[in-house]
Amino acid sequence: MMNVPKLEDLGERKAVESLIRLLGPAGTPVGVGDDCAVLDFLQDLVLLTTDMIHEKTHLPSGFTPYLAGWYAAAVNLSDIAAMGGEPLALLAAVSLPREKEENFLLEIMRGMKECGALYNVSVIGGDTKESDLLVIAATAVGRASKGAILLRSGAKAGDVVCLTGTVGRAAVHLERSQEGHSENVEPLLRIYPRITEGRLLSENQWGNSAIDLSDGLALSLHQLARASRVGFEIEGSKVPLFRREGESYQEALQRGLYTGGDFELLFTMGTEHLLAAQEGFRAKGTSFTVIGSVLSEPALLVKIDAETIPLEEKGWEHFKE
Amino acid sequence: MMNVPKLEDLGERKAVESLIRLLGPAGTPVGVGDDCAVLDFLQDLVLLTTDMIHEKTHLPSGFTPYLAGWYAAAVNLSDIAAMGGEPLALLAAVSLPREKEENFLLEIMRGMKECGALYNVSVIGGDTKESDLLVIAATAVGRASKGAILLRSGAKAGDVVCLTGTVGRAAVHLERSQEGHSENVEPLLRIYPRITEGRLLSENQWGNSAIDLSDGLALSLHQLARASRVGFEIEGSKVPLFRREGESYQEALQRGLYTGGDFELLFTMGTEHLLAAQEGFRAKGTSFTVIGSVLSEPALLVKIDAETIPLEEKGWEHFKE
Repeated sequence: MMNVPKLEDLGERKAVESLIRLLGPAGTPVGVGDDCAVLDFLQDLVLLTTDMIHEKTHLPSGFTPYLAGWYAAAVNLSDIAAMGGEPLALLAAVSLPREKEENFLLEIMRGMKECGALYNVSVIGGDTKESDLLVIAATAVGRASKGAILLRSGAKAGDVVCLTGTVGRAAVHLERSQEGHSENVEPLLRIYPRITEGRLLSENQWGNSAIDLSDGLALSLHQLARASRVGFEIEGSKVPLFRREGESYQEALQRGLYTGGDFELLFTMGTEHLLAAQEGFRAKGTSFTVIGSVLSEPALLVKIDAETIPLEEKGWEHFKE
Repeated sequence: MMNVPKLEDLGERKAVESLIRLLGPAGTPVGVGDDCAVLDFLQDLVLLTTDMIHEKTHLPSGFTPYLAGWYAAAVNLSDIAAMGGEPLALLAAVSLPREKEENFLLEIMRGMKECGALYNVSVIGGDTKESDLLVIAATAVGRASKGAILLRSGAKAGDVVCLTGTVGRAAVHLERSQEGHSENVEPLLRIYPRITEGRLLSENQWGNSAIDLSDGLALSLHQLARASRVGFEIEGSKVPLFRREGESYQEALQRGLYTGGDFELLFTMGTEHLLAAQEGFRAKGTSFTVIGSVLSEPALLVKIDAETIPLEEKGWEHFKE
């Protein structure tokens, strides 16, 4: 028998690398493999991204259709944020069982609509289909000016590494919701994509690179490092952690580094922009934390207490445990 | 107990009508409910459409991943064709079980890529996720000049009703593939969206309205009639039918009117453009058939032999038998 690679042997990222090789240069200014696809459109760039949400693999028990719709819109808008784009519109393809009440479908759309409205975008189209379990495939469209777009490939040695919000938040809410704390389902799914922050970084040309944290801090750092051909040294003590009551710092740090679902913005900038960016963020009621620096060599390190150790390439990945 | 409407009581179209009411005016030049969503973008219009394909409800047994990918790309490009648009790019979100071989995923993408290549578009982005059964949610992006776009709402009394290709073709291939004729799977799925035809109609401003036939001729005529607030009288004898060997004309006509999956273009045009359009289509190696005329009153009629009878509003619809 031949030894044919299965998706579970490869994991999502290796499978996507094969896809990118197959698809070849896409004739776009950016190509396949960043947070959004980018189309050159007259003087502007059109950003496109699509993300599928499955009831079984993405939604905690106790989810509501409203929150599922919100989440589907938000994860796509988060990809627009990671490019520094201005969102323009959402599309929604929804599949669900025929026995569902009409209101279930309307609630999904209400969730998408209200999440979009927060960022001034409407749901302008979609598709409904029949299936055994709920699937929502949302697509977000955005816009960016040429030259004012945040790519994964722009990090430069000497940049500072920055992060919005905290990490580990989604994992804590997921753990607690799995323990039966139904009040944790809402904060897990009602995420707020970092559109404002992405726009600040791109429009002011403060950011050199960015990615959103869907799969966790460590994996996102590895992806950013690979795309920019640089390394990172992260100060463990500076990483802003969302902590469970009573747990140790070490537990919180491990969760913060190696679990996903937070949809924060990870970005790098030249130190010369740091003060202006901090002030600009403050003026818009938001903030970020400097958590490390960009290295010229491709090492990924994290300093924990006095020790500097390799940052592992692990986190949330489909097709793998 | 309250009598709560379920999706199976409503059917897809009624459910979508509720969604459109919920979403409200989308702030786009076209609004929700045409073949594509439309974004106003500088001097141009951006067309957006998304369609989900489920292994269980859309793909015949014996499908190959290559053909599934082709089909997912083609049904979306068909929506761009129905607006008279020029396709720009495809996005692919694919969910599948972890036990699948990597090659299965690559073959899906190869199918999408090759279908796109036929129309000069690349797959520029996407998403892969884990699920129990295969789901492909493709998104197509297109472009149209302002004033050169085909809407469902543009049909005018006195227009001729026209159709590309034949109807009943998909249903025949589906029936035969269900009877075990595996050679019918490929023609069922390898559809060729009518991009050339849509472009001819929009760029030359020959067409007043258009829709693609995904759900069947009768349902598409009803949708076009409602959007344009007109009626149609179809000459049954002029409808080009794809026939099974040995079947009666009546059987073929019923199938041609009331089954879906053909993805032909149904459109209307003023009689003054008819000769130029026929010549223009011929010059591009394609053609269409005049099958009826547009009425000012909202009646939908079909003339079969000497009798003129109502055209029923039935065909393929999700959530309903």
